Amino acid sequence: MNKSRHQEIINTAAHLFKEKGYNAVSMRDLASKLDIKAASLYNHISSKQEILAAIVLEVAQEFTYHINTIFPEKSSTQEKLEAIIQNHIEITLRMTDKLACMNNDWVHLQAENKEKYRHLRNAYEDKFRAILKEGKEKGEIKDVDLEIIVFSFLATLRTLYLWYTKKTSVEVEILQRDLPKTLLDGIIS
Amino acid sequence: MNKSRHQEIINTAAHLFKEKGYNAVSMRDLASKLDIKAASLYNHISSKQEILAAIVLEVAQEFTYHINTIFPEKSSTQEKLEAIIQNHIEITLRMTDKLACMNNDWVHLQAENKEKYRHLRNAYEDKFRAILKEGKEKGEIKDVDLEIIVFSFLATLRTLYLWYTKKTSVEVEILQRDLPKTLLDGIIS
Repeated sequence: MNKSRHQEIINTAAHLFKEKGYNAVSMRDLASKLDIKAASLYNHISSKQEILAAIVLEVAQEFTYHINTIFPEKSSTQEKLEAIIQNHIEITLRMTDKLACMNNDWVHLQAENKEKYRHLRNAYEDKFRAILKEGKEKGEIKDVDLEIIVFSFLATLRTLYLWYTKKTSVEVEILQRDLPKTLLDGIIS
Repeated sequence: MNKSRHQEIINTAAHLFKEKGYNAVSMRDLASKLDIKAASLYNHISSKQEILAAIVLEVAQEFTYHINTIFPEKSSTQEKLEAIIQNHIEITLRMTDKLACMNNDWVHLQAENKEKYRHLRNAYEDKFRAILKEGKEKGEIKDVDLEIIVFSFLATLRTLYLWYTKKTSVEVEILQRDLPKTLLDGIIS
């Protein structure tokens, strides 16, 4: 299969899914957007479900890949958490449509793919939790409940894409500078 | 109309909408859950849309009511923000189904009600922003971009209900103690 054609189909689908939701988009809509015949689309891809799985698992694997690279013993917990936050910002900017699609439509994955996604998401949360736990043991994290930190950070980081498209959004440089401060150091002076 | 019967219909609908999503629930499903005939349900309520509007606007008005009570000049910014956080926890516990329904299904409101909801939500964000702005002017808030704080806090507070039903959830007392600390003072020691 032509790889760039395949990527174009995936990217266009991600955009359509983000705009209308997975259930509201048909293969016919997708073919129309790509300006090809529906029959021709099936030469490249077997089903809408295959496209959804490709999108969701690609994003989830990006996150997994990144968090698995930030475990050097010498870094401080602060440095590790900053790297995680910057990675969420970077993926949000680079893969906005696919990220939105993952968040909104992963529930529509069929059993096997849903299981793969859940596994990747849980493994990510576990790595994040392990970094916090190690930080707490080293005295680099305050004595607050770790599950509250996991939830609070991920609630913010996973929905960055929602906010980023709003008119009140800030410049990328300010986001990269102030989001880690806000999450790590708090806001009360 | 019998007020407690009306409330029972709303509460049951909120639970069904939360479990299955607004679009997947019919008036017939609701009647069946209430153990009454569909025709009899229409004696109490005219449409599914009326129920959705009642749920969403009730929750939004709860938030509006609360944030409008916390503007005494003498309180510190920290006290005001703590009150906002505790209020989100309290509403999350008391109105879990309705809150989930508001977050998931407000998009299905028809024009006029959607406008009312958007107005309440924007007014809430504006009050929150005004508290932060005043805090920054008084030097009680660190010099970070206010929109990042608005987003980060509300992303966490508005999705508390999602996390609260997970098996990893913590006790209410720990949430009330550690969520304000995490958001206001940060986690790096």
